Amino acid sequence: MPYRAPLSDFSFLLDMVGFAEVAATERFAESTPDTVTAILAEAGRLCEATLAPLNRAGDKHPARLENGVVRTSPGFAEGYRAIADGGWVGMSARTEFGGMGLPISLATCVNDMMGSACLALQLNPLMTQGQIEALEHHASDALKSLYIPKLVSGEWCGTMNLTEPQAGSDVGAVRARAEDRGDGTYAISGQKIYISWGDNDFSGNVCHLVLARLPDGPEGTKGISLFMVPKLIPDADGKPGARNALHVVSLEHKMGLHGSPTAVMQYDGAQGWLVGQPHNGMAAMFTMMNNARLGVGMQGVAVAEAAFQQALGYAMERRQGKTPFGSGAIVDHADVRRMLAQMKAEVFSARAIGLACAVAIDMGRATGSAEWQARAALLTPIAKAYGTDIGCEVAHLGVQVHGGMGFIEETGAAQFSRDVRVTAIYEGTNGIQAMDLVGRKMMDRGEAAYRLCDEMQAAAELARAAHPDLAGAVWTAAEALREATEALIGLQMNDRFAGAVPYLRAFARVLGGHFHLKAALADPARLPLAAFAIKRLLPDYGPLLVQARAGAEGLYALTPEALSA
Amino acid sequence: MPYRAPLSDFSFLLDMVGFAEVAATERFAESTPDTVTAILAEAGRLCEATLAPLNRAGDKHPARLENGVVRTSPGFAEGYRAIADGGWVGMSARTEFGGMGLPISLATCVNDMMGSACLALQLNPLMTQGQIEALEHHASDALKSLYIPKLVSGEWCGTMNLTEPQAGSDVGAVRARAEDRGDGTYAISGQKIYISWGDNDFSGNVCHLVLARLPDGPEGTKGISLFMVPKLIPDADGKPGARNALHVVSLEHKMGLHGSPTAVMQYDGAQGWLVGQPHNGMAAMFTMMNNARLGVGMQGVAVAEAAFQQALGYAMERRQGKTPFGSGAIVDHADVRRMLAQMKAEVFSARAIGLACAVAIDMGRATGSAEWQARAALLTPIAKAYGTDIGCEVAHLGVQVHGGMGFIEETGAAQFSRDVRVTAIYEGTNGIQAMDLVGRKMMDRGEAAYRLCDEMQAAAELARAAHPDLAGAVWTAAEALREATEALIGLQMNDRFAGAVPYLRAFARVLGGHFHLKAALADPARLPLAAFAIKRLLPDYGPLLVQARAGAEGLYALTPEALSA
Repeated sequence: MPYRAPLSDFSFLLDMVGFAEVAATERFAESTPDTVTAILAEAGRLCEATLAPLNRAGDKHPARLENGVVRTSPGFAEGYRAIADGGWVGMSARTEFGGMGLPISLATCVNDMMGSACLALQLNPLMTQGQIEALEHHASDALKSLYIPKLVSGEWCGTMNLTEPQAGSDVGAVRARAEDRGDGTYAISGQKIYISWGDNDFSGNVCHLVLARLPDGPEGTKGISLFMVPKLIPDADGKPGARNALHVVSLEHKMGLHGSPTAVMQYDGAQGWLVGQPHNGMAAMFTMMNNARLGVGMQGVAVAEAAFQQALGYAMERRQGKTPFGSGAIVDHADVRRMLAQMKAEVFSARAIGLACAVAIDMGRATGSAEWQARAALLTPIAKAYGTDIGCEVAHLGVQVHGGMGFIEETGAAQFSRDVRVTAIYEGTNGIQAMDLVGRKMMDRGEAAYRLCDEMQAAAELARAAHPDLAGAVWTAAEALREATEALIGLQMNDRFAGAVPYLRAFARVLGGHFHLKAALADPARLPLAAFAIKRLLPDYGPLLVQARAGAEGLYALTPEALSA
Repeated sequence: MPYRAPLSDFSFLLDMVGFAEVAATERFAESTPDTVTAILAEAGRLCEATLAPLNRAGDKHPARLENGVVRTSPGFAEGYRAIADGGWVGMSARTEFGGMGLPISLATCVNDMMGSACLALQLNPLMTQGQIEALEHHASDALKSLYIPKLVSGEWCGTMNLTEPQAGSDVGAVRARAEDRGDGTYAISGQKIYISWGDNDFSGNVCHLVLARLPDGPEGTKGISLFMVPKLIPDADGKPGARNALHVVSLEHKMGLHGSPTAVMQYDGAQGWLVGQPHNGMAAMFTMMNNARLGVGMQGVAVAEAAFQQALGYAMERRQGKTPFGSGAIVDHADVRRMLAQMKAEVFSARAIGLACAVAIDMGRATGSAEWQARAALLTPIAKAYGTDIGCEVAHLGVQVHGGMGFIEETGAAQFSRDVRVTAIYEGTNGIQAMDLVGRKMMDRGEAAYRLCDEMQAAAELARAAHPDLAGAVWTAAEALREATEALIGLQMNDRFAGAVPYLRAFARVLGGHFHLKAALADPARLPLAAFAIKRLLPDYGPLLVQARAGAEGLYALTPEALSA
């Protein structure tokens, strides 16, 4: 079942989430409808024809470490070259350094397609995009002009080096050290783990952004600085020269995403350049992470899309048992149809949320509007956690639709399920996302959330004449979300944390209902899916909000001793 | 984190689900409390000390086919021998053939422990147990006395051969042929797929129960007969002799359960013996499948238990970030505690449902009571589907608790998630289970279901004084389940099928709430977990029952073309 880029979905969704506003800004004035169509079509061709055929090979022939050199999966070098040559690595980078300067909204669609086609390879440019953005915002002009053009062109690749064995979710526990070499550079030492694409055999250099602590850096996150530490040290002309004092210690043996080498990196006094201010590395890292969080959320959506397409194709061909309407293909069994409907409805909701987040990012950047920025900040953890949760769930359903064949690796259904699993973990586990949502993102006392509730209710009012039941359900759900948000804001932080994950899920459910309703209003052909989503999936918000508001006490009543009993 | 057999949970649960009634019957009079304790402790030791250490090796060194011979994973032969020598293969077989004659309730506990320790190996005796039971009920005396003692002792192993490429969920499509050889035996020809433990290198023989069609067998399930087709044909003394005309074509490359060889089997006029009446093979197969369905449901529970134990162990050791109570171990973060609580609560619910089903089977057999038999029939698909669904969900949460380490294979968390995945598919997918529940199991017009609702409400009344809120919630949920059952029975069959999976899940949720309430009443130490389950998980039944009652029309409004758009 070859992957087919869902181009019409992207057009429809971009329209629905207000991309026209983005295109109307001066910064993104070049994103005319014709340009958008051409860009998506071109990326779609690349994904269908060049990247999707690589996906199985990445799984069957994992990247490996040979004599200190990472050997990538068959075809990945050519696939990467095609991505780079198409300009897709730097599509949202600023034009002054050779980027296309496209809105994040469009880059998000392209990343979505690349992730459906071959997640393991797509992760490589996704990391580089995050690095470019961090450098654009925080690096010195000298670093910018040396590194960004090479990253944008895809000649060099970028990585993020945050995690250490004792510093995972708690980035503040980083121990890697940086010492001033007295020549404007720093000597970086320490071990980093879980470094996605820590090395490869197809780019001219690998540029590591590394979090490390200067000797006078205070404990915790406020003592961490960010450094550019290239694998090969560029000479005066920017040509990769001497090898830096860093190396790949080992690659992890993972549940999935085998085509993406996940490295343990060792730095032994490697030469590094400070990015941003001393002790202020977290600020730059957050720039990179926010971008990456939306990107990872869309990885979940991407795999869900691919898993859905494959399951639907299988269900339309596989004949088994007597179906109520006599086609004999299992897609006509009610329960199979139910699973496929759920898969499609979830993909639609999660993609709409991700693109709405992307539009908010673009609007925030193009206009400087604090309101848009707050919306982007609010939607980012939802897009990340919900996108990757449904990535796991939809891939799980995809296996189920295949029956016994789903458990056999040759179909690829199992691979989707294994590959996508990490997306709910990396770039901040989904628990961390939810805590971000109810913590940092509610420091506005819920203002951004209430504004969204207002909008959803206003949209429901507009839809009420055409679809009274569906509109009523969405309106009521938005009201319940508002009340739960008020209740949550009244709680102590740890009580909020206790309900954070269900709250985030409920928020996504309500947003999903809202977007499905908008879709049905805009296009009657989308009514059956919208009705399915609103009547059968949306009601989940009720029990989820019960959990969201339940507080921490009941959890701590269940002591570790009681859990162990 | 070594596996620890949850012996006190088994004692508590057996007590709670009415095992005393089983032990009070004449048939199971030997199951005195002391015997039960001794048996569970002995099985627990085997699982902890001998089987659990094999689990990783099964994953890392899959069974493989070498020159037509299946080579099993390192240590599996010794592990199997220990199971057989302990008498655990034949623990519920009748004593006249050497079995222990134990109730299914106890066998279920032992299988649960073996499944936690090493699911891939446990599947082997589980298959043999099903075969023994089919033979006990349907085989001729000659076949019984030849095969059952060898199967009970573990000298020989048994398999089930149902599936063919075109006949999966639709067993009636079986094409394998059987022809009368004129000597009281039959020549069996055809290909069978997904044959768990289709061969091994540690048992003296492998006995295949094969579904095939006699020349005069009508189409569909009513033309299928069952045959015993041994790998080695026993001579007059019952010693394995000449090789039969059957062989393993290949082993599947699966997502998990690598230690269990899943074979494609080829039969080329292999000599077989009819089991039961001609064309009546499905009756015998259903005997085997009902046993196996509860067994598979408990496989889900078993893996969930193991995944929970490992995640809890990790969470109590791993330090990360500042925790509200300062221990620093992540178990004290509210969201981690929430995940662990959910894992434990689900394991408890699913295990209680499985054991309640086992008690009903035992009572049905010991007393011949139609009421108990109806209860067993009703609970079997719920035990199978819910047990394996929570197997997948709990293993998923187990990975999540591990964070990045969860995605790395060396922790074993990922293996649980991969291994358990197939349990939601084999022995009838969970969709098939749900259709069985709302179809065949409601042919009594809901009588068995209403009786359960009555019981749950009566128990809630008993608990009301001590725990008014919890009891009220369970009572109301049982009432909603009753109403939904009435509504479902009023629907056309395909409308029932459309809501079958959510209905089954809701049924399990309500049963889970009921059992947690009973537990809290019996043992105050169990109140915190019960409160968690009833306040935070039980409310799911609301939206689930909405879906259950929604019918098929909305699903078919979403055409394959609309899904493909």
